[in-house]
Amino acid sequence: MSVRVFSVTVRDHMMIAHSFRGEVFGPAQRLHGATYVVDATFRRADLDADNIVVDIALATRELNAVLAELNLRNLDDEPAFAGVNTSTEALAKVVADRLADRVHAGRLGEGARGLAAIAVTLHESHVAWAGYERDL
Amino acid sequence: MSVRVFSVTVRDHMMIAHSFRGEVFGPAQRLHGATYVVDATFRRADLDADNIVVDIALATRELNAVLAELNLRNLDDEPAFAGVNTSTEALAKVVADRLADRVHAGRLGEGARGLAAIAVTLHESHVAWAGYERDL
Amino acid sequence: MSVRVFSVTVRDHMMIAHSFRGEVFGPAQRLHGATYVVDATFRRADLDADNIVVDIALATRELNAVLAELNLRNLDDEPAFAGVNTSTEALAKVVADRLADRVHAGRLGEGARGLAAIAVTLHESHVAWAGYERDL
Amino acid sequence: MSVRVFSVTVRDHMMIAHSFRGEVFGPAQRLHGATYVVDATFRRADLDADNIVVDIALATRELNAVLAELNLRNLDDEPAFAGVNTSTEALAKVVADRLADRVHAGRLGEGARGLAAIAVTLHESHVAWAGYERDL
Amino acid sequence: MSVRVFSVTVRDHMMIAHSFRGEVFGPAQRLHGATYVVDATFRRADLDADNIVVDIALATRELNAVLAELNLRNLDDEPAFAGVNTSTEALAKVVADRLADRVHAGRLGEGARGLAAIAVTLHESHVAWAGYERDL
Amino acid sequence: MSVRVFSVTVRDHMMIAHSFRGEVFGPAQRLHGATYVVDATFRRADLDADNIVVDIALATRELNAVLAELNLRNLDDEPAFAGVNTSTEALAKVVADRLADRVHAGRLGEGARGLAAIAVTLHESHVAWAGYERDL
Repeated sequence: MSVRVFSVTVRDHMMIAHSFRGEVFGPAQRLHGATYVVDATFRRADLDADNIVVDIALATRELNAVLAELNLRNLDDEPAFAGVNTSTEALAKVVADRLADRVHAGRLGEGARGLAAIAVTLHESHVAWAGYERDL
Repeated sequence: MSVRVFSVTVRDHMMIAHSFRGEVFGPAQRLHGATYVVDATFRRADLDADNIVVDIALATRELNAVLAELNLRNLDDEPAFAGVNTSTEALAKVVADRLADRVHAGRLGEGARGLAAIAVTLHESHVAWAGYERDL
Repeated sequence: MSVRVFSVTVRDHMMIAHSFRGEVFGPAQRLHGATYVVDATFRRADLDADNIVVDIALATRELNAVLAELNLRNLDDEPAFAGVNTSTEALAKVVADRLADRVHAGRLGEGARGLAAIAVTLHESHVAWAGYERDL
Repeated sequence: MSVRVFSVTVRDHMMIAHSFRGEVFGPAQRLHGATYVVDATFRRADLDADNIVVDIALATRELNAVLAELNLRNLDDEPAFAGVNTSTEALAKVVADRLADRVHAGRLGEGARGLAAIAVTLHESHVAWAGYERDL
Repeated sequence: MSVRVFSVTVRDHMMIAHSFRGEVFGPAQRLHGATYVVDATFRRADLDADNIVVDIALATRELNAVLAELNLRNLDDEPAFAGVNTSTEALAKVVADRLADRVHAGRLGEGARGLAAIAVTLHESHVAWAGYERDL
Repeated sequence: MSVRVFSVTVRDHMMIAHSFRGEVFGPAQRLHGATYVVDATFRRADLDADNIVVDIALATRELNAVLAELNLRNLDDEPAFAGVNTSTEALAKVVADRLADRVHAGRLGEGARGLAAIAVTLHESHVAWAGYERDL
């Protein structure tokens, strides 16, 4: 089986407050916060007619738009996350799924309809990060 | 004038929630949060009898202790910061001053009494950081 | 085929001495040393009941415990590595396999029994790193 | 199915000028330039007789040789790229394919004939990078 | 003498083409290019009424505006640089001086008139960077 | 007083074994090792006739030559360090002083005789580094 895959990644960030429920979280059950440096990777087997994976300006704009819905907020107050632990890995899925919706809605351009997968990594510090990858 | 200065830096991090007051802060007036990756630098002109600037194990321990007083908290609820904007640069001074107190109290070892200055940098994202430097 | 995978990564480091045998290693046949900045990644298809991949405090503790068995040592003197070239990639496997043993022994928590794979990367400098990935 | 894969990565860089054709590129249709920090990753399921993935000195030398054919040039003037948009992702494939040719020609050593795949990542800034992965 | 200085740094980037004149530059006399990851640091001894060094939103906007005058261009064609080697260190001074002009013109806010110095660093690769610092 | 200073920094690395003497070093009294990622910064108030701080090719070559005298060695066996703790900060001074000697000997070019200062930083891990700065 032959493998070949191209990827493009763009980086942005968001700064949120939240708290966790469950003994496993220890002192992180208190209200605290995090900067997430967010990497969104787009993958496909072949380049489009412009010889690119995705229009990087649109990818950057749409990642920023997805993060703007979360940025500078207390996630404990967001109805979308009621009763849910907004762990780094769970937030990576939220960002990836919302990006996938925008790909399907054509907001990353017509060429982006050929994308095969999205991977999102959220860096929470210099010693910890989490991610989620899914196909399209 | 001859210049010669040695330095040692150790890195740790903290994750806090807070909000700002003042129009200049825009949407950051909302409750949000940040990971601060914290670099504490110790400077002096000459090394001590062990050929070091400071015992790096003690420096690491004391930086961690200073950050533990702030970590995983909502700074808006801390009496020490009542009525104060806990900007990144202001927090850098808090960390530097508390480290200076610990140097003076001997908690970084007797050799550390020869330290000349402390600089603290707080990285709030991949595109912004702030710092404070002071002598001892 | 649908792909979905979550991951969590924690970082630590170790500082060891060693030498290599074989002409391919050139001057690295001399006794020298390395700092390895170690990233341990844990993967699974679905999150556990707390909405996480693994308890990050336990992952951090166990990675530190695995590295403590190697850290600040001359690997040439360790019986476990007698007659073996402790290349960066070979050490990545050692760390991954010892972490896997700890997962199976329950030291990363009961939820961690649902982990699917472990990947370990050892960064030996700003221009070289090596890794090993295995399923569980 | 059991998964096990070792990898070794080496880093180098190149600094080139180029321009793009196509409305999607906006102001990047003008002649401009980029530093690409290039990571070349070599993968295989089992280590060779020296307990390594590849001779890192040869991998470093050959990556440098591949980049030397592109470095400090205006890619718009290179016959190999006539009529082609030299996007970051397209250049990642060029580097990977040329490294693959060198593996097949024995320039990374006889042991390197056991390599299974090559992945190349080109970092174009602190907020964007692209890659290409292929088997051998 | 007591030393105390606060700083805030913001990061952005630009991608330019250029060539150098002079034997010292070797193959870099050919037309080539670079990504410069640009750090602009603002310093002052005391914080303003909002407890900050500078409005970080304005600092980010003005740095971006300064870089937009250079970004995605061939500097060899810019009248401002006729007959001048646009070395990394020389470009750092251009960026710093243009930021200083904007500070003096009030574009970083009235509070920014209290700034004492600006330092600019341009990272041209993972192994080289250059900077310029000046007072205001 | 007007301040203006240019700088250029180049990065390389070395991998050494060593041990420390003194209780303050704890388990680091055992033979172990380190990768030092080394940044050498050259400073001056005005650029030379080529509009640069220093010939970056010569700076890179001479830093590499200084590190080659230490790289892939057990520093405990080096006569130059007999009875001396080769702490990170002490090694930073060794590298800076040897670079200064090479500047004075003209090995960084005639233009480099105008350099004002050298700063050297040795990164020993992702959480610790040390440095030394001196004038010329």
